[in-house]
Amino acid sequence: MRIVTDPMSLRETLSDGLTVGFVPTMGYLHEGHLSLVEAAKRENDRVVMSIFVNPTQFGPNEDLDRYPRDFERDEQLAREAGVDVLFYPDTATMYPLDMARVTVRTGADVLCGASRPGHFDGVLTVVSKLFNLVRPTRAYFGLKDAQQVALIEGYVRDYFVPVEIIRCPIIREDSGLAKSSRNVYLSETERIDASDINRALIEARDALTEGVAITSVQERLVERLSAIPNSTIDYVELVDYPTLSHVTDSSTELLIAVAVQFERARLIDNTIWKRG
Amino acid sequence: MRIVTDPMSLRETLSDGLTVGFVPTMGYLHEGHLSLVEAAKRENDRVVMSIFVNPTQFGPNEDLDRYPRDFERDEQLAREAGVDVLFYPDTATMYPLDMARVTVRTGADVLCGASRPGHFDGVLTVVSKLFNLVRPTRAYFGLKDAQQVALIEGYVRDYFVPVEIIRCPIIREDSGLAKSSRNVYLSETERIDASDINRALIEARDALTEGVAITSVQERLVERLSAIPNSTIDYVELVDYPTLSHVTDSSTELLIAVAVQFERARLIDNTIWKRG
Repeated sequence: MRIVTDPMSLRETLSDGLTVGFVPTMGYLHEGHLSLVEAAKRENDRVVMSIFVNPTQFGPNEDLDRYPRDFERDEQLAREAGVDVLFYPDTATMYPLDMARVTVRTGADVLCGASRPGHFDGVLTVVSKLFNLVRPTRAYFGLKDAQQVALIEGYVRDYFVPVEIIRCPIIREDSGLAKSSRNVYLSETERIDASDINRALIEARDALTEGVAITSVQERLVERLSAIPNSTIDYVELVDYPTLSHVTDSSTELLIAVAVQFERARLIDNTIWKRG
Repeated sequence: MRIVTDPMSLRETLSDGLTVGFVPTMGYLHEGHLSLVEAAKRENDRVVMSIFVNPTQFGPNEDLDRYPRDFERDEQLAREAGVDVLFYPDTATMYPLDMARVTVRTGADVLCGASRPGHFDGVLTVVSKLFNLVRPTRAYFGLKDAQQVALIEGYVRDYFVPVEIIRCPIIREDSGLAKSSRNVYLSETERIDASDINRALIEARDALTEGVAITSVQERLVERLSAIPNSTIDYVELVDYPTLSHVTDSSTELLIAVAVQFERARLIDNTIWKRG
């Protein structure tokens, strides 16, 4: 595995015309990230992973400073997973002074976009820049960040970015808790309690299949999540996927998405329900 | 010459690995545009021109609706100049509903950016999209829009866009008037009067060479342009190029840029002075 920190060296390394599967991450790798690498290996000549904790997708009162980092461990995991090139740039490289930004105009005002203003502008800014640099054949994103996936797909479509976006399933602990770098913030008890989130999502999906009305499903989900001790609900929403707009009679896929705040960790989780 | 309106057909047409020189325009072609084509032909296997009157770079009270258009004439001129592929998309193709935008964070608050808020956001939005689609080897821009050139160079550098930006000289009438699609708005008398702009710029450049202080050069330039009948000065500025920031002792290139409003036409012109 080659570790590259300089953009021009990266470009040179990738200039030989092999197909590239790209896995952009913020590091502190877990099985979710590694499942993306696995998918990328299957479908491309070469796998490029980036590790960059992107400051512009954190709000002023969020956890940028304490976001978990462990490059040596990440390097080891990436190597074992079969990453060919690990791109590990510094902030000055990714954000030269007063760089222009990408701003999202729709789909960023619901779910995490409502709770975290500017978050998806930061995501699209860094992703579009990484796409220009890596020029991947395919890029792999986990559906835990379902809103992110939808907005990146929209950007790629609207801006004619020559890359195929591959949606990958959420990877969970045995308990059902979705894997997340932020799970490290959870206490032992919180980790057990948080596994209720997945159970509640499954119940909601089953209720939709049984024909329960959306408002009732949402109410029940709020009730279930409210019962998780020492936590507060950030949002519980059902939206059309991937448009992220209001559910209508013609919606064929519904995203059931929640965010729950524990003492030190804000967790998100979701499931997609398909009609019929 | 092949005329293409559909983005996917364009991508297919350009998928054979030939080098591409790209000339993005808003049409109503004049010798300035054709000089870009000429440069592009010299340096690339294939020349792609786009014609698209980009709505987002016009302000609410500007001339979007009456901006001159003549596709048949443009087609003829492009063909004669040796353009290989003419891309002529419609607005719905270039601006799907609620598309994300590029927003400039520096260098857009002076010169035309100050007079035309949002103008350069619109320019970078469409140019970045066209670059993704055409994936040119080189892209050609005229220095009449010197601020545009500087901001596009900055965007390409900061976002690692894999294209070489080629700056091309301003093309002028025999009178010295800079060629512009908007010259068609000028009356016969205005067209004669407007040629004073170039003379005033040459005097300013000569004064800098003679060591006249910048503030005096600017004052003299304001005086000269104020004397042009039936017109008002929009701005007269001297800035560091291509940073567009304040001139300092270490500035090696100065952009002397002006905008003058005639009855129906707002004209811009400039010259770059290089320190000895």
